[in-house]
Amino acid sequence: MLKIYDTTLRDGSQQEGISYSTEDKINITKQLDKLGVNYIEGGWPGSNPKDIEYFKRVQDLELKNAKVTAFGSTRRANLTPHEDKNLNAILDSGVEVATIFGKAWNLHVTDALETSLEENLRMVESSVSYLKEEGLEVHFDAEHFFDGYKADADYALKVLQAAQRGGADSLVLCDTNGGSMPFEIRSIIKQIESQLTTPLGIHAHNDSDVAVANSLIAVESGVKQIQGTLNGYGERCGNANLSSIIPNLKLKYNYNLEIDDKQLKYLTEVSRYASEVANLTPPTHQPYVGDSAFAHKGGIHVSAILKEPETYEHIEPELVGNKRNVLVSELSGKSNLIYKAEELGIKLNQETTDLRQVLEQIKELEHQGYHFEGAEASFELLIAKATGTYNKLFELEGVRIITEKRGELAPVSEATIKVRIDGQRVHTAAEGNGPVNALDSALRKALVRFYPCLKEIHLIDYKVRVLDGNDGTEAKVRVLIESGDGHNTWGTVGASTNIIEASWQALVDSIEYGVRLKKQ
Amino acid sequence: MLKIYDTTLRDGSQQEGISYSTEDKINITKQLDKLGVNYIEGGWPGSNPKDIEYFKRVQDLELKNAKVTAFGSTRRANLTPHEDKNLNAILDSGVEVATIFGKAWNLHVTDALETSLEENLRMVESSVSYLKEEGLEVHFDAEHFFDGYKADADYALKVLQAAQRGGADSLVLCDTNGGSMPFEIRSIIKQIESQLTTPLGIHAHNDSDVAVANSLIAVESGVKQIQGTLNGYGERCGNANLSSIIPNLKLKYNYNLEIDDKQLKYLTEVSRYASEVANLTPPTHQPYVGDSAFAHKGGIHVSAILKEPETYEHIEPELVGNKRNVLVSELSGKSNLIYKAEELGIKLNQETTDLRQVLEQIKELEHQGYHFEGAEASFELLIAKATGTYNKLFELEGVRIITEKRGELAPVSEATIKVRIDGQRVHTAAEGNGPVNALDSALRKALVRFYPCLKEIHLIDYKVRVLDGNDGTEAKVRVLIESGDGHNTWGTVGASTNIIEASWQALVDSIEYGVRLKKQ
Repeated sequence: MLKIYDTTLRDGSQQEGISYSTEDKINITKQLDKLGVNYIEGGWPGSNPKDIEYFKRVQDLELKNAKVTAFGSTRRANLTPHEDKNLNAILDSGVEVATIFGKAWNLHVTDALETSLEENLRMVESSVSYLKEEGLEVHFDAEHFFDGYKADADYALKVLQAAQRGGADSLVLCDTNGGSMPFEIRSIIKQIESQLTTPLGIHAHNDSDVAVANSLIAVESGVKQIQGTLNGYGERCGNANLSSIIPNLKLKYNYNLEIDDKQLKYLTEVSRYASEVANLTPPTHQPYVGDSAFAHKGGIHVSAILKEPETYEHIEPELVGNKRNVLVSELSGKSNLIYKAEELGIKLNQETTDLRQVLEQIKELEHQGYHFEGAEASFELLIAKATGTYNKLFELEGVRIITEKRGELAPVSEATIKVRIDGQRVHTAAEGNGPVNALDSALRKALVRFYPCLKEIHLIDYKVRVLDGNDGTEAKVRVLIESGDGHNTWGTVGASTNIIEASWQALVDSIEYGVRLKKQ
Repeated sequence: MLKIYDTTLRDGSQQEGISYSTEDKINITKQLDKLGVNYIEGGWPGSNPKDIEYFKRVQDLELKNAKVTAFGSTRRANLTPHEDKNLNAILDSGVEVATIFGKAWNLHVTDALETSLEENLRMVESSVSYLKEEGLEVHFDAEHFFDGYKADADYALKVLQAAQRGGADSLVLCDTNGGSMPFEIRSIIKQIESQLTTPLGIHAHNDSDVAVANSLIAVESGVKQIQGTLNGYGERCGNANLSSIIPNLKLKYNYNLEIDDKQLKYLTEVSRYASEVANLTPPTHQPYVGDSAFAHKGGIHVSAILKEPETYEHIEPELVGNKRNVLVSELSGKSNLIYKAEELGIKLNQETTDLRQVLEQIKELEHQGYHFEGAEASFELLIAKATGTYNKLFELEGVRIITEKRGELAPVSEATIKVRIDGQRVHTAAEGNGPVNALDSALRKALVRFYPCLKEIHLIDYKVRVLDGNDGTEAKVRVLIESGDGHNTWGTVGASTNIIEASWQALVDSIEYGVRLKKQ
């Protein structure tokens, strides 16, 4: 059976901007286990205290599918393995599986390690056998294998053979610089496989934009273990993307994986979880798991897909836990609008609603910078206004926000607000961490007496996007707010050249939608 | 010779969020011509007035390398080609090359087109021959070819043969839904190529994350034309990425392209231009042309690369017009800092500068949310402060920004500022489009009398990123500002939970750096 080996927590976290806490790593471990990968490379116990803590805590998890592995390098030159701090740190970490990497490129041995080619072979063999003797399952990552093979095929093969002599359970061929083409992967694996008895693995990087294909072609060539990361995270251009490789192997190749059909449905959720925890926006256009992977825009297109999904979808989105996404945009036809409204549980009465007018309004608002993808609550309020089911919560008389900075001190923001509700006037004020936070606090303070359910409604996420950078600080901004009440979450949008105005629109929609939900 | 066919302006602009104006399209056409692609698919003259205007204007360009092509569909069922509005729109557009698409999947013919399989073959043949008789070079895009071939190989082949009988100059095999695997592309092309005499092309989509590999494998299988888009733009998961395919073909396959070595150096610039115009952030991690494609983070890693670049770089970044990017980050060692400083023309005296202290400070600031990648001016000011070459331009006594909104009206923002310069006090005020713009205007107004060069310094780009969405409107934000003086551009950064404070830091750095530049 093919083995899926995830290294999101180790090689993936080399990506700029990713910095997982121990808690994050534990949570991702649980998610990966739920998905059903075979191995989770948890970290490098020799390198930092955070990873040591992770390996301590991970022992208390009751994992159902995955084995956690510790990463490290072969011993240093001219030491015995017993004297090597890193190898002993792996043993101390308490794992049952270790993955150690060694140099497979002669240039790296002489120039980076600064040792002899022979000593490197001894380092590989003795490091593997040391861990094997201690009872571990041991994978050997042959770093720079493909570049090494191109430079000196004989030596690169000798490195693999040294690991094999040491007793390695698998020999993982790494395209560390990501420069190899699919035809090279195929041809090199073909040349070596008959000379080795140990199962092979592949570890590809995406510098040439073919890491997924290189991994698949390695599998076609007989490799039994595929290493990669969720969302293709990793340094430079990333690692081979398991979020694409797994569904390709299951759904296109029909290969037998530990991951069953039910687990495959977790793929989108687990992939997005890894990006949320990393505080990175999930790439919308990502194959299989992206928000746009099954998005349909054009009107004719949408009519076709409602008749016969396979005409424009290569797989059923539900197989990987994703969903079809019919976009409401300036390119939309009436069929998108009706589909979208129905998805939101609104039955549009085509006789009483002027669909053309709603479409025109959406077109005009999108032109101004609004975006209803991800802001379905604002879209629903728009429909409510068009169908006469909208109730205004309050009248704004005025709001003023002051931010004051004295010398080198941090600034202070304060908002005052005057609103009219049910004939009564409320005039209040609040401070905040920045002008938008002050505005938010003052608005809630003014309304909560009339709408007590606001106590449960809170903001989950606040995003600002500058739409047209070329105008500097005068640029138009779009604000997207995600809110929740403990049961539901909803997104709202605002757009303006003034960030306060854009935030105001999204805040008011957020509150109006939340109160509307409670009343239903 | 292999032909590169770019469809950024047509299929690429289907991507969510992309909306090119006619002016944008003309500018991208010039860029693509400079890069040396063979064909530029400019648009769909039958579909909208913007595209008609484009084809009118493009005739005045003196293109050196590329031919502009017009896109359209085969004639409608049961009409003659002469009666078909779309085909005539192509002729009216004044192009010398047309690309028309027809259905190659039986399901689409019967269910989407709602015509007979035989009529579809006649539509393909007569549409191609009509345009050929009018003297055009004609490419035929066989839509859904691979899915069609899997469903009914015989019929899919008949569609290609109909286009060939019509006199098509090439038959382009489209993987419209992006679901095909590399092995399928290879095997299907192998099955058909002996039965056709017309050159083949490939048009791949990235729904399975293998569009680049599918295009390369099609070339290995004998295809002569590769269609794709800059940065892989396109609907859902995008089209085959020419920004990766071109360098792979040139540098890895050593294929002969019209694009010469000198033109290849434009690749990064042209790719980034297309994203700037589309108002999309260029994906940092994109192979070959991304900012991180040749980024190096770890300290040991950087020392190795300075000794021997090929150890960690699959190609020389300069070949595609990109550059090595040594990151200054919490993972940095001293070698990164020295390299970076030298890149900025600062010779760090290791005896008088406390490098460890500067590194600690960077680490602390990055922890707070600063990011010096893309903000090299702020980095340089930091070094200047550490080496004692920094001059403060002014002392801030206080600044106050008021945003006021009355009823449904748009808000008004005003800033007042009090600073001390050379013992003099300046107290002034300005209005702006939003609080940050008001702050920017007031600050410049206060300083310009003392530093007249500020008249030439302007903001080019202003970006806000919410760093930790989970705190709602209290979240920490990072502001990146790009400024210019007509000769140079520079980036500065600020971070705070208060957007005003973060903007203030980046604005002050921007002005201080600009004045510093003028004095040098």
